[in-house]
Amino acid sequence: MSGNSFGRNFVVTTFGESHGPALGGIVDGCPPGLELSAADLQQDLDRRKPGQSRHTTQRRESDRVEILSGVFEGRTTGTPIGLLIHNEDQRSHDYSEIAERYRPGHADYSYEQKYGVRDYRGGGRSSARETAIRVAAGAIAKKYLAERLGIRIRGHLSQLGPWRPRGFDWEQVEHNPFFWPCAETVPELETYMDALRKSGDSIGAAVTVVASGVPTGLGEPIFDRLDADIAHALMSINAVKGVEIGAGFACVEQKGTEHRDPMTPEGFLSNNAGGILGGISTGQDIVARIALKPTSSIRLPGRSIDRHGAAVEVVTKGRHDPCVGIRATPIAEAMLALVLMDHTLRHRGQNAEVVPPIPAIPAEPRP
Amino acid sequence: MSGNSFGRNFVVTTFGESHGPALGGIVDGCPPGLELSAADLQQDLDRRKPGQSRHTTQRRESDRVEILSGVFEGRTTGTPIGLLIHNEDQRSHDYSEIAERYRPGHADYSYEQKYGVRDYRGGGRSSARETAIRVAAGAIAKKYLAERLGIRIRGHLSQLGPWRPRGFDWEQVEHNPFFWPCAETVPELETYMDALRKSGDSIGAAVTVVASGVPTGLGEPIFDRLDADIAHALMSINAVKGVEIGAGFACVEQKGTEHRDPMTPEGFLSNNAGGILGGISTGQDIVARIALKPTSSIRLPGRSIDRHGAAVEVVTKGRHDPCVGIRATPIAEAMLALVLMDHTLRHRGQNAEVVPPIPAIPAEPRP
Amino acid sequence: MSGNSFGRNFVVTTFGESHGPALGGIVDGCPPGLELSAADLQQDLDRRKPGQSRHTTQRRESDRVEILSGVFEGRTTGTPIGLLIHNEDQRSHDYSEIAERYRPGHADYSYEQKYGVRDYRGGGRSSARETAIRVAAGAIAKKYLAERLGIRIRGHLSQLGPWRPRGFDWEQVEHNPFFWPCAETVPELETYMDALRKSGDSIGAAVTVVASGVPTGLGEPIFDRLDADIAHALMSINAVKGVEIGAGFACVEQKGTEHRDPMTPEGFLSNNAGGILGGISTGQDIVARIALKPTSSIRLPGRSIDRHGAAVEVVTKGRHDPCVGIRATPIAEAMLALVLMDHTLRHRGQNAEVVPPIPAIPAEPRP
Amino acid sequence: MSGNSFGRNFVVTTFGESHGPALGGIVDGCPPGLELSAADLQQDLDRRKPGQSRHTTQRRESDRVEILSGVFEGRTTGTPIGLLIHNEDQRSHDYSEIAERYRPGHADYSYEQKYGVRDYRGGGRSSARETAIRVAAGAIAKKYLAERLGIRIRGHLSQLGPWRPRGFDWEQVEHNPFFWPCAETVPELETYMDALRKSGDSIGAAVTVVASGVPTGLGEPIFDRLDADIAHALMSINAVKGVEIGAGFACVEQKGTEHRDPMTPEGFLSNNAGGILGGISTGQDIVARIALKPTSSIRLPGRSIDRHGAAVEVVTKGRHDPCVGIRATPIAEAMLALVLMDHTLRHRGQNAEVVPPIPAIPAEPRP
Repeated sequence: MSGNSFGRNFVVTTFGESHGPALGGIVDGCPPGLELSAADLQQDLDRRKPGQSRHTTQRRESDRVEILSGVFEGRTTGTPIGLLIHNEDQRSHDYSEIAERYRPGHADYSYEQKYGVRDYRGGGRSSARETAIRVAAGAIAKKYLAERLGIRIRGHLSQLGPWRPRGFDWEQVEHNPFFWPCAETVPELETYMDALRKSGDSIGAAVTVVASGVPTGLGEPIFDRLDADIAHALMSINAVKGVEIGAGFACVEQKGTEHRDPMTPEGFLSNNAGGILGGISTGQDIVARIALKPTSSIRLPGRSIDRHGAAVEVVTKGRHDPCVGIRATPIAEAMLALVLMDHTLRHRGQNAEVVPPIPAIPAEPRP
Repeated sequence: MSGNSFGRNFVVTTFGESHGPALGGIVDGCPPGLELSAADLQQDLDRRKPGQSRHTTQRRESDRVEILSGVFEGRTTGTPIGLLIHNEDQRSHDYSEIAERYRPGHADYSYEQKYGVRDYRGGGRSSARETAIRVAAGAIAKKYLAERLGIRIRGHLSQLGPWRPRGFDWEQVEHNPFFWPCAETVPELETYMDALRKSGDSIGAAVTVVASGVPTGLGEPIFDRLDADIAHALMSINAVKGVEIGAGFACVEQKGTEHRDPMTPEGFLSNNAGGILGGISTGQDIVARIALKPTSSIRLPGRSIDRHGAAVEVVTKGRHDPCVGIRATPIAEAMLALVLMDHTLRHRGQNAEVVPPIPAIPAEPRP
Repeated sequence: MSGNSFGRNFVVTTFGESHGPALGGIVDGCPPGLELSAADLQQDLDRRKPGQSRHTTQRRESDRVEILSGVFEGRTTGTPIGLLIHNEDQRSHDYSEIAERYRPGHADYSYEQKYGVRDYRGGGRSSARETAIRVAAGAIAKKYLAERLGIRIRGHLSQLGPWRPRGFDWEQVEHNPFFWPCAETVPELETYMDALRKSGDSIGAAVTVVASGVPTGLGEPIFDRLDADIAHALMSINAVKGVEIGAGFACVEQKGTEHRDPMTPEGFLSNNAGGILGGISTGQDIVARIALKPTSSIRLPGRSIDRHGAAVEVVTKGRHDPCVGIRATPIAEAMLALVLMDHTLRHRGQNAEVVPPIPAIPAEPRP
Repeated sequence: MSGNSFGRNFVVTTFGESHGPALGGIVDGCPPGLELSAADLQQDLDRRKPGQSRHTTQRRESDRVEILSGVFEGRTTGTPIGLLIHNEDQRSHDYSEIAERYRPGHADYSYEQKYGVRDYRGGGRSSARETAIRVAAGAIAKKYLAERLGIRIRGHLSQLGPWRPRGFDWEQVEHNPFFWPCAETVPELETYMDALRKSGDSIGAAVTVVASGVPTGLGEPIFDRLDADIAHALMSINAVKGVEIGAGFACVEQKGTEHRDPMTPEGFLSNNAGGILGGISTGQDIVARIALKPTSSIRLPGRSIDRHGAAVEVVTKGRHDPCVGIRATPIAEAMLALVLMDHTLRHRGQNAEVVPPIPAIPAEPRP
């Protein structure tokens, strides 16, 4: 496999299956001297963890993370940080059906084709449960970026099926079970999700993540552009089918005079670029948006085949998220944090002596 | 910078500026025994090169590529392939204005902030001229994938500003200056582009790339998923602001029953997945779509600042593409080819012994 | 730090400090289908673990390893293998002295200069305790190489201070506490080591590792030559100050007619090359030898400085190996196994179609 | 192959065969603002180039390097530096014999086994001619290290067959054709080499390289230790069979009291460590020594086989170095420079905020 690491100078590697004994990971390259304890990681883990409301899977996991190395007397030492989360609620039920059949829209078939074998319990390695460690690792990056560089990373659900927010307020995001930035529309979402859950179907969603206070100069053209690495990071999240930066797909119908962001001595006047030009951060907010597909794990029967190629009907039992996008906000924030952290270390190494020859343009505020 | 390489086992590294003496690159990891000559690369280079119609930049470059190593007696030897393209039409005009001012929407500002210096002639390293070497390298990958694995990679313009094709025919794509799959609408595009060019403005576009005949099993979860690497590759192309796989952003409004692709003994019945499940290829066509912003290099004046932070008005002179999306089709094909080539070598190394335990499901045809 | 991973396609990443709660690691890229259990790893861990004789440190660690992921129903699945070993015998004594003083010849000073902080308990990350995870990971590689490719990796102590074996017998290596290939000289070593231990001093050693049954073609010139990667791997072991391949430093005084290994239809007639030509394996035994310095952790006082730069005298208390080379044999075997495993996957990916055009020359037997 | 890159943050990639049209390379990650011209590279290229005395190969190459990118108005821009050297003296003689036979001690056999094909002209990719680009790239690193960090990298021949210098003077090294630090013994070497050349045989050698003025803190444990990366770099040079750091193999017979380097407020009192402890630089001189085998390309007949496995006698014609170690000094310097440059960028990224809490110990002078 050998694809379980992310980053070059700040490297995160993860392991673990949905129904194995534990998930874990290693964060390699964290600068020394950062105050760090498991509590710093737990906050985001709790935002991601299942069972927080009736709108997500009812699997019960405390997702309590242990730091096994790399921290001494409350501060990072520069050595690798070992992370461990024990799985607690792996129900041992009968897997004989799922072992023999491929759920349509799932990784069952592709894993078996690739490896000739698969851990079918709860999706094994392909389960989004793996993202818990990403969130823990991302929390370390977030803390460093915030404390040392003043970078703030936030996210919110920006669409749930046909629903879009009618207003925008960052304050609301953490006060409802959807990471939704518009208090007014929350009841409508609640009603919609309740009906959806009853129907047995699932729905897609979009999540937006924003990094504020990013310095200019992050990103390594040509291939390791900041936007290319963000696309890589976000598309690696389970269920993501699309990534946009700034104006994103809307730029297809824009003219040059509309799209380009005017610069003034007081700062940029718009942010179609999403904070990145030529693959390098400009100091404006970095804005990315992802599309998450509706989960394929639904109770409604679907056509499929079994391991012998025969036609079968598949119904997914067990506990699943009717909208995986809801819990994706902290994961997307974590991945954006990992990219910015990695690029901060890379940029600083090569350009330690660069004294910006011009005053940085203050970025205009933008949600 | 250190971001000028792409791939892990099939590695492409490029160098060169828009107005320097030459562009070049190294393809490292090509299997031995592939018949190869410069002519194999020239075909795609000619599809990308400027000045092919009145709708692209009028810079005249023959883009003739030399193979300097790695090929012996007409076949690759397994050693690195050195590629070189001399720049021919670098007009030496007066750059004093662009040297002092940042073009809005351009990488001028971000490069200078990052490096403290920039080669302002024609955009230097940030110019899309760099993609010529990607196309040359991609042609090697395309040839290998076609000859050894039967994989075919094609692309087309799928939207130009507000225009979408009304029909679809792969045959038409190479018979008009837009890579447009619908003969009927070509005259409308011609008229639109002529008017746009006269107005001095530019327009965005979307390009779709498709790989057919891809075997199952390519892609390395978790972070090096096939879709994540495709997103990385495509977002690294100049002007790209969004990447979609399969249904892409449309999945946000889909239900699980709509999105998941049913499987039958005869194959998949739809392809919302875009040929990838769990980050691993399923054997269906791989389908990706990108959004390209309108070029910022336009004759119409824009607000900006100079190197001293003072407000200025900027007008871009010189020769530029009014729609950079038009020439992007061969570039996107090349990047998709590089990803598939890299993952073929990675997969084959780890899974040489895997005998697929079930018959591969034949993918249904899809444009 | 970001230097805690080894390999490209078969990647091992480790974490953990000498006196932290646990050591751990992730093996990423193991092919699927390999039968594997913790018992397979324990064998080599037991060969390395401390306290096996009076000639090594008396720290008591059972070094029991847990496999936390990547194995399902007794076979590897192709997903990352999580490994964990709890530390058991971290004596909590007073570290105030070592916290303030740098032991001469130790990493105390360099870690503090690099990171501005160090976990001084038992050497923290710089302790050779970290190699336990290497041995566990190497055992996986060894098993795969043996079962699938018929490669056998063995090692022995080839010099202990002034002592060299007077005879050679692989059978003897596992029947004495020194991995010594000559039964006759074992009593002399015992006497020597007993006297050394009493004196409070330590001694250097050399270890030789040999891989037999290696196929031709492993190694990726120019920089990732097989010998270069072996040198990297072996020099990364604590206390190693030199690495030789084949004839090694003896080649300095050899003539071309002596050094080059004649080839015959029956095989090579000698092995000065150590099984590698041009960075690629030839099918002969791969032979490497390393020099290990005497440990600096000795009871005899040495001159040093404290954290404030003042002159001090340092005496190392605690439990230490008087000859770290003795326990290095399984570590060196593990590192050689990791290199061969990684190169097997890399080679196989690129050269899957290469059918050797000539019969492989059978390698002559050589210890 | 995919092994033609070296470094992680300062990455050098090379291409080219002995008898192809050109050699080339890309240096990716050079910090911006460094004054640089081809002349800066030519100096070391001239030290390495063939035909400088009667004691090296008589192939005539001017080895004139072109910089094709990455430098603007005399300074590096942070973008990749493209390098090109045209081959000039590829004699086109009859290769039919070498095409069918494997020279003993050469890479002919291993390349053919690996790739199923080889460019046999002059050794193709396995020729040491490839090192010209390493020397050019290393010169960039050397210049940066010298100008920005005050690091000086030098090398000398430390043994030629049975001959060792009887005195030591850095001043002498550049004043004889051997990079020999002892004027008194040069005439003996001349006589020895003349006789050797006449005999048709070749001889091994050792080269020592030293870096002075290295700051503390370079090196990334565990696997990317500074010494491990130096071993990798030096062992990747053609013909190298052994690498030592500091005391090297002599440490095998040292006691702990002898080997450990005492520290005092005025600095270290010896340098058995070779400037590296725990894989991290200590501020002392970094000292490494390599063993180079005698070239196998000799006129004296040797036993071998042809491509069909039949026994043949091989005599190497053409122009060859009777002692490849002589020209290896600038190559070893270049590789050491590349390692230090790469680690400088890595260290600086992670530890930008570390203020060394203690005064650096001044390293004592040492050749």
